[in-house]
Amino acid sequence: MYNSDILEKLIESLSRFPGIGKKTAERLSWHLLGGDKVFALELAENIKTAVETFKPCSRCLMLSESDPCPICSSPDRNLDKICIVEHSSDIPIIERMNEYRGLYFVLGHLLSPIDGFGPREIHSEELSRRVEEVKPKEIILALKPSAEGEATIHYIWEIFKKREISITRLSTGIPFGGDLEYSSSNTLRSAWARRYSV
Amino acid sequence: MYNSDILEKLIESLSRFPGIGKKTAERLSWHLLGGDKVFALELAENIKTAVETFKPCSRCLMLSESDPCPICSSPDRNLDKICIVEHSSDIPIIERMNEYRGLYFVLGHLLSPIDGFGPREIHSEELSRRVEEVKPKEIILALKPSAEGEATIHYIWEIFKKREISITRLSTGIPFGGDLEYSSSNTLRSAWARRYSV
Repeated sequence: MYNSDILEKLIESLSRFPGIGKKTAERLSWHLLGGDKVFALELAENIKTAVETFKPCSRCLMLSESDPCPICSSPDRNLDKICIVEHSSDIPIIERMNEYRGLYFVLGHLLSPIDGFGPREIHSEELSRRVEEVKPKEIILALKPSAEGEATIHYIWEIFKKREISITRLSTGIPFGGDLEYSSSNTLRSAWARRYSV
Repeated sequence: MYNSDILEKLIESLSRFPGIGKKTAERLSWHLLGGDKVFALELAENIKTAVETFKPCSRCLMLSESDPCPICSSPDRNLDKICIVEHSSDIPIIERMNEYRGLYFVLGHLLSPIDGFGPREIHSEELSRRVEEVKPKEIILALKPSAEGEATIHYIWEIFKKREISITRLSTGIPFGGDLEYSSSNTLRSAWARRYSV
């Protein structure tokens, strides 16, 4: 039987990515070994550089090359709004919409006591401090509609409900291109309740 | 709009993997940035080590840490057989079957003049030399049944047909768990022609 520790280690490393199983990791490893070495070494270097450079912004906790991050330090952003997201990776998605010019705050997790994610893990103190500093007029909760998302939305609403801040969340409903048939009953119920005149 | 050259480079590197598109590469990049840094640096290191260590075996062209590779240098292999595969990564798959104890030869490509893969690219001279050295009784063509695979099988058969070597190829037919309904007509025709008594 043919075995290589070096290859096994590479496969193991790659299979730690979410959604990449052992078989895919093996295929990717062989691709690296058999392909252009320059590309493979570049990949290794790019991982190293990125991981060593990116750190959470001290204001919004977004992973960024600079602190404060380009958004928190930009003079062009609207300080009236803070959009709360779960992950840093949600930010480029919202930015690409080309609609929102306010600030962000990254929770890092959603509330899920069973998984050990409580108020501390979602950085609720840092959030309160940031809201204190910025004094936004609106907090937009761009969190996913799931049990954990709902719990988090409720928890954050509780923190700020007595302030003069409008707290909003993204609309829930049937996605464009989505099929009634394949929508969950929660999605359908929400789309029904929030129906609007055509 | 939020932009980072370092992040873009990482995404671009990852999206060069076969089967990994821009969106997946972006997700993987954020996973590396937001996850365990030790793991990410380990991955970078493992890629570097593997790519710098693995080279084609001078006998069978399999990518390997050592030259000759563990299979070519093993005293336990049966020198009567050479199994010809397209990629190094085919070898662990055949080894896992725990059935074959002979040698291998890696072509690197299948014949495909339109893509620029001719006799030189499939290392036919190296193959002839290896067969001359080893003098096997059987050459097993473990190539995929496609137009390129068939052309390659025919080409290799032409090289060795006048020798006292039995040249075999893997059986083609309906895969286990496969459905007649979803089998191509080539597959079905081959399974039909090669039907055997139960």
